[in-house]
Amino acid sequence: MSDIAAANLRWAMALVDRLVASGVQHAVISPGSRSTPLTLACLRHPHLRTWIQVDERSAGFFALGLSKADRRPVVLICTSGSAPANWFPAVIEANHGLTPLILLTADRPPELRDCGANQTIDQVKLFGGQVRASHELPLAETTVAALQNLGWLAARAVDQSCWPLPGPVHINVPLREPLVPSGALPEYEVAAKPKTVSYPAMLPPADEISRWATELSGRPGLIVCGESEYSDGFPAALAQLALQLACPVLADPLSNLRFGVHDRSHIFSRYDAFLRCTGFAGTHSPEWVLRFGTMPVSRQLQNTLAACTGATHFLVEAYGRWPDPLHLTTRLLRADADAVCAALVAAQPFPAPVAWLEDFAAEEQRAAGLAQTSVKPIEAKVVESLIHQLAGGCLFSGNSMAIRDLDNFASGGEASLRIIGNRGASGIDGNVSTALGLCAALGKPVVALLGDLAFYHDMNGLLAARGLNITFVVLNNGGGGIFSYLPQAGLEEFERGWLTPTDLDFSHAARMYGLDYQKVKCSDDFDAALAAALEHAGPDLIEVTVDREVSVAGHMTYWAAVSGD
Amino acid sequence: MSDIAAANLRWAMALVDRLVASGVQHAVISPGSRSTPLTLACLRHPHLRTWIQVDERSAGFFALGLSKADRRPVVLICTSGSAPANWFPAVIEANHGLTPLILLTADRPPELRDCGANQTIDQVKLFGGQVRASHELPLAETTVAALQNLGWLAARAVDQSCWPLPGPVHINVPLREPLVPSGALPEYEVAAKPKTVSYPAMLPPADEISRWATELSGRPGLIVCGESEYSDGFPAALAQLALQLACPVLADPLSNLRFGVHDRSHIFSRYDAFLRCTGFAGTHSPEWVLRFGTMPVSRQLQNTLAACTGATHFLVEAYGRWPDPLHLTTRLLRADADAVCAALVAAQPFPAPVAWLEDFAAEEQRAAGLAQTSVKPIEAKVVESLIHQLAGGCLFSGNSMAIRDLDNFASGGEASLRIIGNRGASGIDGNVSTALGLCAALGKPVVALLGDLAFYHDMNGLLAARGLNITFVVLNNGGGGIFSYLPQAGLEEFERGWLTPTDLDFSHAARMYGLDYQKVKCSDDFDAALAAALEHAGPDLIEVTVDREVSVAGHMTYWAAVSGD
Repeated sequence: MSDIAAANLRWAMALVDRLVASGVQHAVISPGSRSTPLTLACLRHPHLRTWIQVDERSAGFFALGLSKADRRPVVLICTSGSAPANWFPAVIEANHGLTPLILLTADRPPELRDCGANQTIDQVKLFGGQVRASHELPLAETTVAALQNLGWLAARAVDQSCWPLPGPVHINVPLREPLVPSGALPEYEVAAKPKTVSYPAMLPPADEISRWATELSGRPGLIVCGESEYSDGFPAALAQLALQLACPVLADPLSNLRFGVHDRSHIFSRYDAFLRCTGFAGTHSPEWVLRFGTMPVSRQLQNTLAACTGATHFLVEAYGRWPDPLHLTTRLLRADADAVCAALVAAQPFPAPVAWLEDFAAEEQRAAGLAQTSVKPIEAKVVESLIHQLAGGCLFSGNSMAIRDLDNFASGGEASLRIIGNRGASGIDGNVSTALGLCAALGKPVVALLGDLAFYHDMNGLLAARGLNITFVVLNNGGGGIFSYLPQAGLEEFERGWLTPTDLDFSHAARMYGLDYQKVKCSDDFDAALAAALEHAGPDLIEVTVDREVSVAGHMTYWAAVSGD
Repeated sequence: MSDIAAANLRWAMALVDRLVASGVQHAVISPGSRSTPLTLACLRHPHLRTWIQVDERSAGFFALGLSKADRRPVVLICTSGSAPANWFPAVIEANHGLTPLILLTADRPPELRDCGANQTIDQVKLFGGQVRASHELPLAETTVAALQNLGWLAARAVDQSCWPLPGPVHINVPLREPLVPSGALPEYEVAAKPKTVSYPAMLPPADEISRWATELSGRPGLIVCGESEYSDGFPAALAQLALQLACPVLADPLSNLRFGVHDRSHIFSRYDAFLRCTGFAGTHSPEWVLRFGTMPVSRQLQNTLAACTGATHFLVEAYGRWPDPLHLTTRLLRADADAVCAALVAAQPFPAPVAWLEDFAAEEQRAAGLAQTSVKPIEAKVVESLIHQLAGGCLFSGNSMAIRDLDNFASGGEASLRIIGNRGASGIDGNVSTALGLCAALGKPVVALLGDLAFYHDMNGLLAARGLNITFVVLNNGGGGIFSYLPQAGLEEFERGWLTPTDLDFSHAARMYGLDYQKVKCSDDFDAALAAALEHAGPDLIEVTVDREVSVAGHMTYWAAVSGD
């Protein structure tokens, strides 16, 4: 065995083993030559699950989905050159969506850089400011000291991907040829090395809680919950706080507070509807707003909050972000959401006047009634059917109209339903692969609700669908339907420049990638199609034909009806 | 019309108009809301051709292909968020392949950055060191001074994308809402503003030429030509030099010296074969090597050059690159290749001993004869058929095995054949879209020779194939066939980790994207299929089924036979 090839493999094995020991459970590998020692080290590790993806862009989003299942860092591996650049969209989503990833890029050794060598680019700090850290490894060394340093760096990289702001970390790995050892390969000696890094509970300071409690006490206010990695104890702590304050909680679909939460009496989801009612909103201006997590997707809620200029705006954000595009925050508290709830409850603030919560509850009821009797677009029925049939499962929400339809029509229920989306950069890229990664990690059925452009954008990702219990529900409204609600729709060039219909028959994609395919045009057919797809253990595609003009009119009618104005 | 919306559009129109005035002819647009003023300004410009692409990754490579047709800068437009990150692979290829691109990214205004606003990331210097320049525009202003400054910046950006090192330039364009003007839109007042930047002929210094001529004179040497943007006069100037020196020119397929060059007597293309003959190579070591352009793809030639440690290595490279992964260069001259040839001829160096060139000519002849009688893999026959039928046309070469098969089997001919590849970063990404962009710009038939993984990697690009006279020839050897020639092939994990067959039936892709599809298994069928495809005005896919083991054995047999060792 060549000394260099053997050293490369030992080096890669030491790196991979320490990543696994630090908590990594999955690696997503794209094929290549330069990355051979890294790939081999992953494929041979006894405690690592490996996934192969030819297209690095889909690989990046697949890893993102794997990581979203339990927020553990996932390893990505690719070869040198433009290959890692294909990860960039997923890296950006991981950065803004706080998803830990470990990006292992194979590179040429220093002597082959900047001299026209094949598949060689400048990979040092390739991802710029989009990663938490960027490490440049030396060439493989096998001294005890070098391997110890490498192990430390691996553990540190996992740490940096998790705390204080979860996200992607880049390790660039130069490897000198030869890359393949000959003869018998060494076996791992996997030691029981537990993950040794732990992170603090971030408790709010007593004087700040005391101040907040005083300001919240006895005054009408709104609690607003966006997406965040809330702890398991958060829903209960929040319920207690809402009860104590007698204030409504407006819960975004990605807050995961709408479904399966035990005490749901204070949780409202139809605010996008009832806040359109100027008669209500105009007379129910809160004196304070307490926000947890990111800004909810509802534009109506954002408009309402923006109008609350006289209110005190409290924001609880445990990470280093400042998720406040409205620039309203009066006081920002860096602490865990559940701890803040508990501390505020312990401070025993007085409840708001009783009519406050009652009025919101009445509006939620009224909106629910109007929703039931209103003419609804087909998307509403699709969402309702999904919620009904997927009880206990996991739903991936695509961006653009899918998440907005969920916001509008997924009003909540007793049964649990985990909803996950890519709302870091909110792109339509990589949605297919993220859902697949999620499904692969969870090992249980996942449904992905996507628009036709999002589905098209990541069709390559479908190569990973084999054997997974996933159902893609594609709302095919013939292009970027969301633009129909924007002023661009009035432009002469609208169809060509914004709507951009692909006119693709997705049944061909289904056949190519081995998905069971059904095309439906009405909600009854969708019910049956979804039931069949959930019954079927493999991958499914249900294409829902949406007449764009009918759908736009249906949304408009619905919004007008439920606003009750 | 809102003041802001009107200003945004006037601002975008001023930018686009000056880009067009500076030489831009094409814009590739991906749909989005934030980019609306830029898109509208492009769609409405009377002298700009616009192309719509939903997938920004394919859009980036399509623009690369458009630019490769004539090396003029091409504009790319996309919306904010992760959208521009999808361009990154194409940006990297453009950087290393010296292809001018103008990257216009719409962005949120400063007040919406870093505060959790939707589809907002840090786009300032997003592409790091991979672009020639990165400009951050202010918000739209419509004073005369502001529009003049913008015009200057646009002209400067085009200049930076062209000289001294062609490549991508980024302009980040923050836009504040509202984005769509109401009422009648302003018309362009396109002035006749000629492109005012011109670039120097780079002439070699006389003393250096005199020195080179002395060192070349009367000694056996090799001229080696890789890929470069040679001038139209280069082939003739080179022929004169080769004649004067009585030395062979070894020409890479991407040098475009193999086909259609008038005086081809000194140009040899079968060096990958005859340099394998140790009997010949061992007795024909050059005393000097004169290289133009990048390092040729042939590994055999690289090995031969690496062994010429006693020779003087001259490198002519007009750009700022140092394309010498072997680190052999003795003297590097920054000057135009044709000017160097002419100056050397004028210096009247003596020719090498007559046997030198004769021996190379004899080897080329011998290799040609052996190639004719040898058992050949199907790829050889595909390449020969392509050359025969595509005479006068344009061939895009995919990376990995496709370019190597071309190197081996495209030995040259009288009829012209332009061959273009993506050899900057040599990725298998974006090959489909680059070929399509090339075809769109040239407005004549293009054939793209690709492996199955390269075809799969950019299948989304096929959405742009409608109406283009393109033929994709996919050599489907069931995965990354190139790895079969590397030591990885001996690993137990070879198929899973390196070969990675997709097992996709590409006929479904053909049907989905409206390509005429033929599947062939032998060279006779390929001849007929290619003839039919070239006859057909629209897009075609010819899938050539390659038995990987037979193909590998065929290559090995062929190499052994033609080496004549």
